[in-house]
Order: sequence, then C-alpha cells, then structure tokens
Amino acid sequence: MTVQVAGVASTTFGKYPDGSTRELFVEAARKALEDTGVPTADVEELYVANFLGDVTDDQGHVGPMMADYLGVREAAATRTESACASASTTARIAHRSIESGAVDVALVGGVEMMFSSGLGEVTDALANAAENEYENEAGLTFPGIYALMARAYMREFDVTKDDLAEVMVKNRRNAVENPIAQNREELTVEDVHDSPTVASPLKLHDCCPITDGASAAVLVSAEYAEDHGLEAPVTFVASGQSSDSIALQDRPEITRTPAAERAAEAAYEQAGIDPDDVDVAEVHDCFTIAEILAVESLGFFERGEGARGAVEGETAVDGRIPVNASGGLLAKGHPVGATGVAQLAEITKQLEGRHPNQIDDAEVGLTHTVGGSGASCVVNVFRGE
Amino acid sequence: MTVQVAGVASTTFGKYPDGSTRELFVEAARKALEDTGVPTADVEELYVANFLGDVTDDQGHVGPMMADYLGVREAAATRTESACASASTTARIAHRSIESGAVDVALVGGVEMMFSSGLGEVTDALANAAENEYENEAGLTFPGIYALMARAYMREFDVTKDDLAEVMVKNRRNAVENPIAQNREELTVEDVHDSPTVASPLKLHDCCPITDGASAAVLVSAEYAEDHGLEAPVTFVASGQSSDSIALQDRPEITRTPAAERAAEAAYEQAGIDPDDVDVAEVHDCFTIAEILAVESLGFFERGEGARGAVEGETAVDGRIPVNASGGLLAKGHPVGATGVAQLAEITKQLEGRHPNQIDDAEVGLTHTVGGSGASCVVNVFRGE
Repeated sequence: MTVQVAGVASTTFGKYPDGSTRELFVEAARKALEDTGVPTADVEELYVANFLGDVTDDQGHVGPMMADYLGVREAAATRTESACASASTTARIAHRSIESGAVDVALVGGVEMMFSSGLGEVTDALANAAENEYENEAGLTFPGIYALMARAYMREFDVTKDDLAEVMVKNRRNAVENPIAQNREELTVEDVHDSPTVASPLKLHDCCPITDGASAAVLVSAEYAEDHGLEAPVTFVASGQSSDSIALQDRPEITRTPAAERAAEAAYEQAGIDPDDVDVAEVHDCFTIAEILAVESLGFFERGEGARGAVEGETAVDGRIPVNASGGLLAKGHPVGATGVAQLAEITKQLEGRHPNQIDDAEVGLTHTVGGSGASCVVNVFRGE
Repeated sequence: MTVQVAGVASTTFGKYPDGSTRELFVEAARKALEDTGVPTADVEELYVANFLGDVTDDQGHVGPMMADYLGVREAAATRTESACASASTTARIAHRSIESGAVDVALVGGVEMMFSSGLGEVTDALANAAENEYENEAGLTFPGIYALMARAYMREFDVTKDDLAEVMVKNRRNAVENPIAQNREELTVEDVHDSPTVASPLKLHDCCPITDGASAAVLVSAEYAEDHGLEAPVTFVASGQSSDSIALQDRPEITRTPAAERAAEAAYEQAGIDPDDVDVAEVHDCFTIAEILAVESLGFFERGEGARGAVEGETAVDGRIPVNASGGLLAKGHPVGATGVAQLAEITKQLEGRHPNQIDDAEVGLTHTVGGSGASCVVNVFRGE
C-alpha cells in the first residue's frame, strides 16, 4: 500500500519558558491534521518521539499521553527513540505500518523542551545518546565529540574553520525566510569566528541552538487519500536506516558516517534512484561539520569535497543540490525529538511547491537524520507529483 | 506476508549485581538466534525495549548499542517505549515491518537492570510511566496507584485480600517448574498476609519483585522460514494496541482497563477468534489486582468475576483458561523492558509443546502487556500448528 503525506506542521521553534511538551506536541499535531483536513478521530496509530523527557521532566510513556491530549485515546500510541534521529524513526515505522495494510492513518511527530531545562542539564541529558561508559564518564559531551570529528576532518582534507563557518552562513541566510526558524538573522564568517569557543575548533556559531519545538505529520494510505478526496500529492517512497558503534572510539575512521552511507544506499535502492535524482535535501547539521559529513554520506559530494557545498554555493537554494533550505538544525533549531519530522515537513512543502525558499521543479526530496555522532541514521525519501 | 516466531529466549530472571544491560540483552538475543538457527548476520532490523536506562544508567540510544554488541552493526536498530508494555511494542512493530514485506528477519526484545539501581531509585524511575504532574508530584508511585485500584475493586465487587493473595499463590506454584523464574518457592495465602504492607491493601507478596533480565525473539517471514527449512511452527497472527489517559484520575472508572479491552477486541478481530478460543495466556500481573483486571479485560471472565480465576482454579495450569503458567510477573519477575517478549517466549514454548508447565493441545495463545496503570496495552495473538 503506497503511503502519502497528508499534512505537516511545525510549531515555531524557539523558547517556550511557560510551555509544556504536551501542549507543544498537540499544537503541531492539530496543525498537521488541519493542514489537509484529516479528522482527528481517523488517527489509528500515533508514533511520538521525545528524547530528553525521562531525564529533564521525569516523564516517559508519552505515547498514550499525547494520544489522550490530542483526543484520540483509543489509538495505538508508542514512543520510538533513536536519540536525535527519533522523529525519523516515527515516520519510518508508521510507513511500514501503513504499507502492511494494517492501518490507513497514522500521526507521527516529536517534541522536545530543551530551553527551560537549562544548558547544563540539557547537555548532560543529550549525552545519553553517546556511550555512557566510555564517552560521558570521560567528560565527553556532544560538542566535544563533533569537535574531534571536525579536527580530524580538517587535518585529513585540508579544510579550514572558514569552510566550516560557511555552512552556518548559508543556513542562517536560508532561515531568514522561514517563519518557524529560531534564528533568522544572517551571520558572516567573521561573526562565526568572533563567537565564543565551545570545543575547539567549534565556535558557538558552529553549533545548533538549544530549542523548544514540536513537529507532526499525517501519513495515510493512498486508498484513504483517494476515498476522502485529499490533496496529498507527496508520496513517502522509501526509508533506509542503519547503525554503527555508539562510541566514536570503536570506529575505524571518524571522518565519515558509515551508518548514513548505508541508510542512503538502502533508501536509494528502495526508491530506485541515484543521488543525482535528489532535488532537495534536509540533512542533520547539528554542527557545521555534520552537514559536510552528511552531504558526503548521501553521495552528493565525494569524500573530502563536502565543504565545497557551502563554500562554492553548490548547496545553496539556487545551487546544484540545495541542502537545508529551511535553515537546517543550525538556524531553524534542533528540538531533538522533533527534528526528523520537522525535516519531513520542510521537504513536503518543497515537493508541494509551497516552501518559503521554494526550489524550482523539486520532485524528489529526502531527509537525513543522525542519532548521536552517527550510531544511527535514517534516510527517508519523498516524491512529488 | 505471514510472520513466524523462529526462536525465543530469556535469560534467567533475578539479580545480576555485576551485569550490564548490553551483556544481558546480547545473552538473550544470542540464545534466541541459536534457538532455531537463524544466522546473526541475517538480522535486518532490531527493536529494543528498555524503560529505565536513561534515568538509572544515563544511557539512551540503546538500539544501535545492542546491534553493535550483537554483531549486526549494519541493521536498522530502534528503541520503542510504552513503559512496562515496551517489549510488546517491539514485537508488534516488527510484525508490521515483516508483514509489509520490507524485511524478512527482525530481532525483538528488551532488557532491564533494576536490582543494581536500588529499590528507591527504581521506584522513582518507574514512576516516569505515570503522569508526572498530577501523580508523581503528589507522591503517588505504582504500588500506591495499584492499591487505589485494588481498594476500589474490593469495595465494588466484594472481593477480599484472600482472593487477591490466591493470584500470587497460583503464580508462585507455576514458577516452581520454570527454570528462568526469579522466585520459585511456593507461598500460601497466610504467607502473603504475613508479608509487610507496601501500600494498603497490597502486601509485599501482592507485588512483583525487582528483577534484572532480558528476553529476545526472532521473527521471520513465512517465506524466509520455508526457504531456510526452519522449524518455526508458531505464527504471530494478530496485534491489538490501545491507549487511555496516563493519569488514573482522568478515567471514569478505576476498576477496569479500557485500553486492554480495546486492544483485546482489536486483536481478536484481526485473528478471527473469540476469548473462548484462547488456550493459554500470559498476562500483565505486576500486582495481584492487575491479573484480575487483565482476565476480565480479555473477556475470560465477566466484570467482577476475575478473582474466581485463581480462587476456584479456573486460571490454573489444569483449569479452563490457564493464565501465567510461567509464574507471571509476580513470580517469574518483571524486568520491565523485557516483559512483553518474555511473555511471547513463554507462549511460543506452549504452542510448540515444550513448556515446563505444558498445557495440553494448546493451539492459540496470547500475551497481554500493560504500560503504567493501563494507559497503554498491547495484546499479541499467536497460533501453533
């Protein structure tokens, strides 16, 4: 059974000092349902991503909680988790569920409240995505992990801090037009250099911000879409996922992300496409170095050539392969539990021709979402009409 | 695509003061793979349940961690969570994935290390399965929640503490023959009464123990089983899941579990059976009252009649509808992340005719797994040859 995207929405990403996870998730879910008019009562399954709530809010079991607050208490509701890739697993699993013929309508999405927990607690809680025994206990949190990857990459491929900074410059430029983005002011390479060092060589503006936000999408069977006369022109055509060692130290090379390479390969094969067929991509740029690794793992650039994307404009909105036209995690923000479905929402809007940074004639789009430093990756592929 | 159970295993349930979640999970996974000889390298997807690790071990992202330690680094590996029903969601989701035709071999299971964290920390962490804002913050943890349900039930249906105790007496008797069970000594009704009060009316022996353990199952497509000449006579025929408010206070009645009733109804409909067709069941008896609610929600007894099961022997191994022939959570133990697949393992052994408390001519079996106080429930149905 073919799977269509019937509606998508994200809350505005930013700071909700008085918000709650349930309010934010339900806001996104309601907007996604309203987006093309699927009645709430038709939701049969709900998959919810939330990574930090167990630690920061003493709250697990958010599947049924969100179903209840959304008003679909009778739905099957499950949380799925793969660290920062969690939301993309909700989409992948719901895709399977509809493909199997078991259900016609599934709501997927995620939410994260990060700002209100404070930077220290959030950084600690995020470290649960790394290897506790060999990374966290040694004092390594994610800025440090990606700094190690960046330093190794810069040395191996003769890439500079300027090159990294260009990724942020591009993504901030893209975010100017995106109404949900957290940081919509442009930055220069100098601004990046002048920002405080977080973990050398990464500056503050090589890192995504701390973000509250939620995203949701309504996936339906093609049969349901037809029977209900829905405008749902985007097909969810393929999903690839793969794994790697959770600890950086257990990988033979730290300047590539093999889980992403395998996820992309699987997704391309299932979709029957090559990297060249992709018109637009939202990739996991939690740090500037991460976008460079991402575009290489997806086959858009050869190894060691990924920095060229931002530096030479190949990944710009008007470039050869536009990447993170939304502003990406770096500028749009990265509420970790919401990110994969937020990417899905951006790609859907591109393929429907209603994105604020619309790519001309975009027909094939993908999302690339990474858990931890690359221990998990999900690549989902979508096709417009 | 029909889904077969190709192998099952649980570790011995009990106390592993020097153990780790990864070692325990991998032990169960290897045994499940060896159970009917599926090569490890054939595992395409892995779904892992673990409820407490974020809080007790500072470790999330356990999907790829377990894939890596099992030796299937390239598999798609995702954690799924619905509190104490988490493992049953791994089975349900893998079932969909194989049914969709996307993969042929999925390994599912779960693990929990509870003993080493200490009773206080575990009780606190388990409370994440309840509503934090309205239950935990008011001092209500799970023994208290189930005590409220038990007291209301006893008043409404004229059921006594003796009747509750009979559930533990039966399940302890069943556990004597189960080599993996944590508590294999028989108890009398007097022993239950003489045990300390945990939350009145519940005594210590109305409660399941604190348990370390892991369980795993290998699910395969019927085509894979046939192509590889596997002995996999048990078919995973149906899965129902439903939700309810996470907080007890938001439910119109607290002496029934509507999520379980709906999950059972959906599973029966998908399987094309009635409650009378079920030959053997493993149900979620985290407390004695929970088994009584379970057998009513599954339609084995009318409302208010569930206590008769243990009191009059109808749910005994030689009774009309044997329930928890394994010893159940009360005696076998309840490592929360493992429980649903541990139940699946017991039912599979029954339907294959190799259970230590074998039910004669068992053809249809089910697992009933509850999250929290009933905010989520999964009912999975299996059929032997």
